Amino acid sequence: MRKGKVLLSVTGLNPRRWYELLSASREVVLEPDGPHDPSIEYAVIWKQPQGVLAGLPNLKALFSIGAGVDHILADPTVPDVPIVRVVADNLAQHMTEYVVWRVMDHHRFGLLYRTQQKRKIWHEPPQRTANEVTVGIMGFGALGRSAARALLSLGFRINGWSCTLRAMEGVTSFSGKDGLKPFLNATDILVVLLPLTPDTKGIIDHALLRQLRRDNALGGAVLINAGRGRLQKDDDIIRALEDGTLKEASLDVFEVEPLPKTSPLWGHPRVFVTPHAAATSDPNHLVGPMLEQMDAHERGEPLRDLVDRAAGY
Amino acid sequence: MRKGKVLLSVTGLNPRRWYELLSASREVVLEPDGPHDPSIEYAVIWKQPQGVLAGLPNLKALFSIGAGVDHILADPTVPDVPIVRVVADNLAQHMTEYVVWRVMDHHRFGLLYRTQQKRKIWHEPPQRTANEVTVGIMGFGALGRSAARALLSLGFRINGWSCTLRAMEGVTSFSGKDGLKPFLNATDILVVLLPLTPDTKGIIDHALLRQLRRDNALGGAVLINAGRGRLQKDDDIIRALEDGTLKEASLDVFEVEPLPKTSPLWGHPRVFVTPHAAATSDPNHLVGPMLEQMDAHERGEPLRDLVDRAAGY
Repeated sequence: MRKGKVLLSVTGLNPRRWYELLSASREVVLEPDGPHDPSIEYAVIWKQPQGVLAGLPNLKALFSIGAGVDHILADPTVPDVPIVRVVADNLAQHMTEYVVWRVMDHHRFGLLYRTQQKRKIWHEPPQRTANEVTVGIMGFGALGRSAARALLSLGFRINGWSCTLRAMEGVTSFSGKDGLKPFLNATDILVVLLPLTPDTKGIIDHALLRQLRRDNALGGAVLINAGRGRLQKDDDIIRALEDGTLKEASLDVFEVEPLPKTSPLWGHPRVFVTPHAAATSDPNHLVGPMLEQMDAHERGEPLRDLVDRAAGY
Repeated sequence: MRKGKVLLSVTGLNPRRWYELLSASREVVLEPDGPHDPSIEYAVIWKQPQGVLAGLPNLKALFSIGAGVDHILADPTVPDVPIVRVVADNLAQHMTEYVVWRVMDHHRFGLLYRTQQKRKIWHEPPQRTANEVTVGIMGFGALGRSAARALLSLGFRINGWSCTLRAMEGVTSFSGKDGLKPFLNATDILVVLLPLTPDTKGIIDHALLRQLRRDNALGGAVLINAGRGRLQKDDDIIRALEDGTLKEASLDVFEVEPLPKTSPLWGHPRVFVTPHAAATSDPNHLVGPMLEQMDAHERGEPLRDLVDRAAGY
């Protein structure tokens, strides 16, 4: 059977490995042959140039590189075809590792010990046990649930918050606008894994952070954002660190990326910066499932892992 | 029934909380009433002053604060009575948290990202997944096995080495002198949780570190010592870091503690120092089990958690 051609359109990452792996099974192009190229049937995209997909008459489906699809939905010229978001097993694994790493580093006083080491100070602060600390996970999809399982097995108490209620054994679940305050009030370490939608844009602001529990095991509330940068207000995080609302923060994402050299987050002694590296989309794990779905679709089977455009994720 | 008096003899830690909790059930003294005090029947000790236990005629058992008992066995004046080493649940939990924390920080490039942040560098190195990294745990008792379980659940491959073979599901087990080389050759991150005995003193030297795998996922071998300081040769670790044998090290213990201000380990950019804080013996968790054993012993029941003096642990 003839296999439809694939457009690979990405910015901000190196397309080489994606191109190689996709090409093993299908014809792949990096640009359409003109604005109305009829030969393109599928597109694999990440922050594609605005308008590149607009006029393709035979486009059947889009495949997003990366778990977030806000970059696609923000482009009004993207045609109304199904959007597939494959979440590779190792994406959840990488994200879970990042969350465990950052939670442990705050819980075990990583920043304090590094500061003490510089000054050759031999001092041990009182150390709580994981079961005396509550981690609240905002966004309880595949990534949030994977992180919750790992943190539960390490002994932490877990709260989960999501738009609609998602129960999980061992987790205290909250949902919706009414559930947000009690969720935050009972959270020591806040882990943000929300999708970026009109409802969640800028949600991590000073007013939200002020609702976190502060009389807690860590000597102050902690923020970890590994979701999307525009969920947060960078300036509010700085203010919350300065006025005692937050003790520390680990940020993998920022309102503008790469984080501008002028941002005070780079030099803040209680902020840990990583370059949107919590969970990288790995072509070795993602291209196979994408090609399988294209093949299945051509055999007449339904697409899976579809994005709900109305919900925005 | 009359309850035997307890001698609480410690140096290097604050005895206040231990005294309060023990006193709730028994008469406690901080010093014997003379060198042959007949009233003392039990002793709770941590790095007790040499000779303090020597002449006590009615001493029935010693209780060690802390999992290591080398501090007791090194004193030839300690009478030949049973030594009880209670390992509190939360000691294993604290140690497991420390091991997970340090393994994750090396695995996820904590030192690199901190250096990059100082220079405002936005760069993501290739990130392997936990299942591409092998953690080798030397010392596979209660603490080593607890750490192994946590690391397995996070996806790491685990090698275990111990004096005599200790199998565990999912772990590749090695033992004895013959097993040491293949264990090290297959290990990317070495976690040391050995007891300090004449056989293990100074075992972590340059020749041992050279046998670790180096063509690995992390760009170099990593050492994490949370056992005892005199298991390692501080100078050899510095040399191994300088000649490329080791990429990084996390050290919670040192040949001399507190670590002298003159030690080059304090200022080494690829060493992470903590002040023997991986797992603190918590009186809230340990005193109860100690008192229970004293009561049971006075009822004629056997003591548990006994140290094997010949083995040294």
